[in-house]
Amino acid sequence: MVNTCPQEFSEFAGSLADSAGPILRRHFRTAVAVDTKPDQTPVSIADRDAEQAMRQLITQQYPEHGIFGEEHGMDRTDAEYVWVLDPIDGTKAYLAGKPLFGTLIALLKNGTPILGLIDQPVLGERWLGAIGQHTTFNGASVTTRQCSTPGKATLNATSPDMFDGSDNAQFSGLSEEVAMTMYGGDCYAYGLLANGHIDLIVEADLKPYDFFALIPVISGAGGSMTDWQGDVLDMESDGRIIATGDATVLPQIIDILNT
Amino acid sequence: MVNTCPQEFSEFAGSLADSAGPILRRHFRTAVAVDTKPDQTPVSIADRDAEQAMRQLITQQYPEHGIFGEEHGMDRTDAEYVWVLDPIDGTKAYLAGKPLFGTLIALLKNGTPILGLIDQPVLGERWLGAIGQHTTFNGASVTTRQCSTPGKATLNATSPDMFDGSDNAQFSGLSEEVAMTMYGGDCYAYGLLANGHIDLIVEADLKPYDFFALIPVISGAGGSMTDWQGDVLDMESDGRIIATGDATVLPQIIDILNT
Repeated sequence: MVNTCPQEFSEFAGSLADSAGPILRRHFRTAVAVDTKPDQTPVSIADRDAEQAMRQLITQQYPEHGIFGEEHGMDRTDAEYVWVLDPIDGTKAYLAGKPLFGTLIALLKNGTPILGLIDQPVLGERWLGAIGQHTTFNGASVTTRQCSTPGKATLNATSPDMFDGSDNAQFSGLSEEVAMTMYGGDCYAYGLLANGHIDLIVEADLKPYDFFALIPVISGAGGSMTDWQGDVLDMESDGRIIATGDATVLPQIIDILNT
Repeated sequence: MVNTCPQEFSEFAGSLADSAGPILRRHFRTAVAVDTKPDQTPVSIADRDAEQAMRQLITQQYPEHGIFGEEHGMDRTDAEYVWVLDPIDGTKAYLAGKPLFGTLIALLKNGTPILGLIDQPVLGERWLGAIGQHTTFNGASVTTRQCSTPGKATLNATSPDMFDGSDNAQFSGLSEEVAMTMYGGDCYAYGLLANGHIDLIVEADLKPYDFFALIPVISGAGGSMTDWQGDVLDMESDGRIIATGDATVLPQIIDILNT
């Protein structure tokens, strides 16, 4: 059954982003210390403190809700409502001083994302998607762009290094079919797709805290977000993602990727 | 003989960027019409109008100077002073709504770049490099970061699609040696290298209007910019570029790229 998202939760998600933003701005373009995690991805004090600030607010406001954060792990993830947090999606971009990283906040109800927020705290740009409502960018409704022909599409991926083994050949095959391929952007590119500036994002190796927040943003703007087979994304997904502004092009993209 | 750059020219370069910026902002994130040029790169009315505005100012102020622009070609390029213009470096990023493109302005004196300016008109960020002076970012001096060990370096390139044939294997080999590789950014990444947030940029397929403006910015901040053999970049260069924040690491990078 499709859920709706109470306005209370949308406002609270904004408060969470408001608590993370000042921490991220304070460390941005400074010589912040960086550790390498076991999965070889970087993490900084900015990541850890921003997530901690959000977790504290959740625990105060909704002690019965669960939390799944990139940096500090899982609490009560069997609860009806679970907040999924990525304090900095795009840590490499953040560390390099590129203002295209973002804070990702999702709210799951019984495992289904009913709310997603992308916040870019340096530029002051925020996308909010909530089930049953139109996605907003800084408060104004946004709509994806129609593009039903792969050959006319602009394609984005954060990095070719996402694609291992055969995924690499499949992505390259798609890249040859589209009008234009660009790299970089992390979650910010999904916001631009919601706003109708990018047609297609194909990525791999995403974690639940990377993709859950994006789903309500994209679907509430008229787009689609699935795995490479066109199936719904969930905790068990393999991290391979297709986001399209025009949902009618999805079958063709799946065909190209899987040939 | 090393030239110096009269203050008059630095101020004039700022005026040129000021004339392009409003045009680029006006068309940014709109459905601007796009053509594909013979070299398969995109161009828009924003590119063409912004370059035209700069060319008019140069012709009025310095009718004896030459002009070499990406979109409208060469005038008087045998003059002592030649302005080299790229109205939008990063047209793909511009068309996708990513605010990391830039306007590039260089001034050559007898073929040598004595001034370079990178302007990001959406974010209001500007780098100015001039021979004999320290590079500035929005008016404040900036300095590159020391990093003498390739294994500790962060590496950036705009796109893996820059690298054809053996260049691709050479870049991949370097990418495996460094601490972190990122994609996207165009000229903006060179500004971040000047500011000490990125250690290394290795690219290929750059044109003179892509790289001349970057050289005074990088060298005036303490870095180095050469071709893949470590030679000075000029009109005849093959478009393969190494920019390092720490010039002492350059021989090691050349070794890795050429093995």
